Amino acid sequence: MATLDTGTGYEVKPSTYIAALTEVGRGTPMGELMRRYWHPVGLVSHATSTPREVRVLGEDLVLFRDGQGRPGLVQARCCHRGTTLYYGKVEERGIRCCYHGWLFDIEGRCLEQPCEPDGGRLRDRVRQPWYPVQELYGLIFAYMGPPEKRPVLPRYECLESLDDGEFIDADDTSIGSGGGAIAPCNWLQHFENVLDTYHVPILHGNFSGTQFTEVMNQMPKVKWDYTPRGVKAFSTRMVAGGKRMERTTEVALPTLRVVPNPFVGGYGRVESLGWTLPIDDTHYRIYTAGRVREKGVFLPKGLGAATNRKRWIDMTEQERRESPGDWEAQVGQGTITFHSDEHLATSDKGVLLLRRMLNTQVNAVARGEDPIGVCFDPEAPPIVFEAGNFLVDA
Amino acid sequence: MATLDTGTGYEVKPSTYIAALTEVGRGTPMGELMRRYWHPVGLVSHATSTPREVRVLGEDLVLFRDGQGRPGLVQARCCHRGTTLYYGKVEERGIRCCYHGWLFDIEGRCLEQPCEPDGGRLRDRVRQPWYPVQELYGLIFAYMGPPEKRPVLPRYECLESLDDGEFIDADDTSIGSGGGAIAPCNWLQHFENVLDTYHVPILHGNFSGTQFTEVMNQMPKVKWDYTPRGVKAFSTRMVAGGKRMERTTEVALPTLRVVPNPFVGGYGRVESLGWTLPIDDTHYRIYTAGRVREKGVFLPKGLGAATNRKRWIDMTEQERRESPGDWEAQVGQGTITFHSDEHLATSDKGVLLLRRMLNTQVNAVARGEDPIGVCFDPEAPPIVFEAGNFLVDA
Amino acid sequence: MATLDTGTGYEVKPSTYIAALTEVGRGTPMGELMRRYWHPVGLVSHATSTPREVRVLGEDLVLFRDGQGRPGLVQARCCHRGTTLYYGKVEERGIRCCYHGWLFDIEGRCLEQPCEPDGGRLRDRVRQPWYPVQELYGLIFAYMGPPEKRPVLPRYECLESLDDGEFIDADDTSIGSGGGAIAPCNWLQHFENVLDTYHVPILHGNFSGTQFTEVMNQMPKVKWDYTPRGVKAFSTRMVAGGKRMERTTEVALPTLRVVPNPFVGGYGRVESLGWTLPIDDTHYRIYTAGRVREKGVFLPKGLGAATNRKRWIDMTEQERRESPGDWEAQVGQGTITFHSDEHLATSDKGVLLLRRMLNTQVNAVARGEDPIGVCFDPEAPPIVFEAGNFLVDA
Repeated sequence: MATLDTGTGYEVKPSTYIAALTEVGRGTPMGELMRRYWHPVGLVSHATSTPREVRVLGEDLVLFRDGQGRPGLVQARCCHRGTTLYYGKVEERGIRCCYHGWLFDIEGRCLEQPCEPDGGRLRDRVRQPWYPVQELYGLIFAYMGPPEKRPVLPRYECLESLDDGEFIDADDTSIGSGGGAIAPCNWLQHFENVLDTYHVPILHGNFSGTQFTEVMNQMPKVKWDYTPRGVKAFSTRMVAGGKRMERTTEVALPTLRVVPNPFVGGYGRVESLGWTLPIDDTHYRIYTAGRVREKGVFLPKGLGAATNRKRWIDMTEQERRESPGDWEAQVGQGTITFHSDEHLATSDKGVLLLRRMLNTQVNAVARGEDPIGVCFDPEAPPIVFEAGNFLVDA
Repeated sequence: MATLDTGTGYEVKPSTYIAALTEVGRGTPMGELMRRYWHPVGLVSHATSTPREVRVLGEDLVLFRDGQGRPGLVQARCCHRGTTLYYGKVEERGIRCCYHGWLFDIEGRCLEQPCEPDGGRLRDRVRQPWYPVQELYGLIFAYMGPPEKRPVLPRYECLESLDDGEFIDADDTSIGSGGGAIAPCNWLQHFENVLDTYHVPILHGNFSGTQFTEVMNQMPKVKWDYTPRGVKAFSTRMVAGGKRMERTTEVALPTLRVVPNPFVGGYGRVESLGWTLPIDDTHYRIYTAGRVREKGVFLPKGLGAATNRKRWIDMTEQERRESPGDWEAQVGQGTITFHSDEHLATSDKGVLLLRRMLNTQVNAVARGEDPIGVCFDPEAPPIVFEAGNFLVDA
Repeated sequence: MATLDTGTGYEVKPSTYIAALTEVGRGTPMGELMRRYWHPVGLVSHATSTPREVRVLGEDLVLFRDGQGRPGLVQARCCHRGTTLYYGKVEERGIRCCYHGWLFDIEGRCLEQPCEPDGGRLRDRVRQPWYPVQELYGLIFAYMGPPEKRPVLPRYECLESLDDGEFIDADDTSIGSGGGAIAPCNWLQHFENVLDTYHVPILHGNFSGTQFTEVMNQMPKVKWDYTPRGVKAFSTRMVAGGKRMERTTEVALPTLRVVPNPFVGGYGRVESLGWTLPIDDTHYRIYTAGRVREKGVFLPKGLGAATNRKRWIDMTEQERRESPGDWEAQVGQGTITFHSDEHLATSDKGVLLLRRMLNTQVNAVARGEDPIGVCFDPEAPPIVFEAGNFLVDA
């Protein structure tokens, strides 16, 4: 043999991932950071008199709306004997377990124990584990952290200041996942992608033809930086007529994607927010709320015209291979990507800043401090993001 | 924030289950208690010249009947090279492995090794692991415990004293599971349910409409107590005409459900016995034997009339949610329910006594003692249960 | 009870398997032995401009052929951010990842990083893990071991010396598995079977009727012995006309089955080789190369005539039970058979010699020595096997 092979797979070290930034169960570093914020757990329309199973941060819960119109979110397993409340009945005052009829209100208080003497003399001693919820922007938000650390539910300027004819619509189909509603991989793989500005011209412009627009296909110039609640990417691209497009995309804790419309139907501030909800360590979904002029229409009308792609759900595996998108790239990293195998480069600076920021906040919470972005002032003004697409003179 | 949330899911301790009462593998506390009794492993008609796979207490076995009509139960993997005897051939003298033709009799003795000199000079040194079986009441019972502790196969008075026109029929469809033949949860969840008298008016009377009868829908008065071989529940309900229904339900070791017909077609002593066989830690099935007057008819003729329910197998998930039964409540507790999360109340006294009794017996076996109900006297009279539905003057 | 039961399943010790001879992951004893040899990873036709997922020795890889016609085998996950190269694009110079467009040549060198300044000034510092491959006999072979120990790719006399009209054909349908292309059990179960001469008259002759020929149904006389690269079985059977059939079957490291045609269409040296490739610890497949006179025809024309069996793929489970073959016997041993439960006899001497040989070679590699059969001389003559069916005077 003339030369020795170098760089073969035989030399690769065993693969590992960074658990502290990816796993979200109660008691884990990231799980505790996540539990210091409110998370969407459903559309407002999901809380009804029919109990609905939801899985959030690795916990199995049941969402419902009592007869008084109040949404409730409780642990799925009844605190009495463990039967799932999925088979329960929703009543005026709460949800009743099918097995022995214990009735719980939306805060888990046990109101009736019909098999016990006097309907349960000691019923005040039990409590169905529950979480506080609030409705906003068409979504139901839950707070699953330590009660004494519960922040106010944030409001966002981009969803508060409506232009004429606009209203807020919400969506649970995981807009931005590039595929189905429940992605079988860790949430951080998607969250990092939001700051991964350079993949746009490659994955969405080159590999798949034009998924977005001709301008977006250009290789941009990008700067990343920290923000008060996350990390932002500022990118510029040249536009016909001597103009320049300036585009700012942000991520904010806990899981917000603040992404201006990549189809760039018009210029201006960001018109929607997405929450990259970790279902558990290996699944996520995205809830979205945004300003719209028509019900159920988030993506531009001319979608078929603007891209050469079928809808993902209608593609064959062969078509997905010929025109891969975010879903293929991110789910294709595995259920939890192996960080030990990575080789980050200068164009990955956004990913790097995000991980550093998350690491800092995980450590802050571990030290007993509040992480960035939590707010305890009910009078605080709505949060303003920089994100948007803007046209400027070059 | 005016007040602090209390009782939220954030405070719940990590969930655990009582392994010593639920797991049934060889060498586990409950597994060793279980192995001191006979268990049904099939219908008499299941032992034929075609080997049948059965799984019992976590062990994979093969059931067959040799050419002399004797049932045999052996470990599935051949003791020679491990091939499953499921592909074996049953012959006059036993079962022959497909791979190298070793022939084993019903007690695992190796009768032939056709590839060895002289048909195997040392064949007496090997033994296919086997278990003794006996046929009774249309069922095949196996003893899987220490040979020196093998009790006599019990006989039961309720299956011995037949009224005119009655005969014994056996069933393997898990009558009483409220659903399919193989339930994907721990056996104890079902076994406890037998003593859970108070769930009847709630789950079977209120949630699902009338699953049994109007009288059974009444909230009963219940007393529980130990018996010489288990625990019993004594309940009373008022009947039209100033009468009172007295109903006694029992569980007996190892897994017997002694449940009078809840449809109460007639009054009298219990007419059938069920065995809640643990297939493994997370699956069970029920074998039943009972006095009948017609083949294959355990439940009352007027089933359709007596209840408003379809058969479970014919229900949609939506219909099961609207009319949940035992299957939904018990499988809904999870594969093995988390006992750490429970809050037992006075109406759960039957469950509590059962667990105490099981715990006492598990400990007795661990100390080398015989558990209750085992009997080594072949002349012992049939076992009499108190169970039944009786009408008395109020 | 008159007598005590003996030999029941209750006395069986917990079951275990020999990990050092079965598991094939990197860093395991057998995995390291395996990685000292070349293994087939696909047909020559499998390496194309469409990336193909292959799994070998527990590693997920992607096989392709660049625009210059060179086959390449790289780790499936891109070394940049971990996205699978299954969604990559094959180009003139290599394979390009869909996510950020890094381009790798067939030896994993990074040729382009389009999102980095100047196409990646530091791109030489990264390397996509790759393995060397070579094409021979219609197959693609890979070497996955330590580079400094890379042997020459062996050539075999039986595939080099062609008779008139013969050519070499390759197959990936696992000829010899007795069933499907990917067997859900450990590779060693199949590999041992090759030396298990005595199962032929039982499994293939008696249980299933005549799977091969009447002569093969005879109980043979067998001798086993070590060879320079494995173990051989020499068997004799009487043939009509006072002749004797002498048949030699071999296994050779790493996974070669050197099996003369059991249908014995004609006598002579072995005409094909099979590689029992471990996909991972619990799956294997067989690649075959052989001398043929017709494309795609390995088995004798008269297959239907010579045996009473349907093709396995066309059989029902019932038919497989009535006529079990190698697949049923070997997959029926479980995903990895429990060696602790076995009772080997004199007719298992071939299995015993094979395990001893493998154990010796595993230990040799662990001591830093070269295992048998590896050769570093590119001028070495083709390897000659003894295997064949021969007719001699009795």
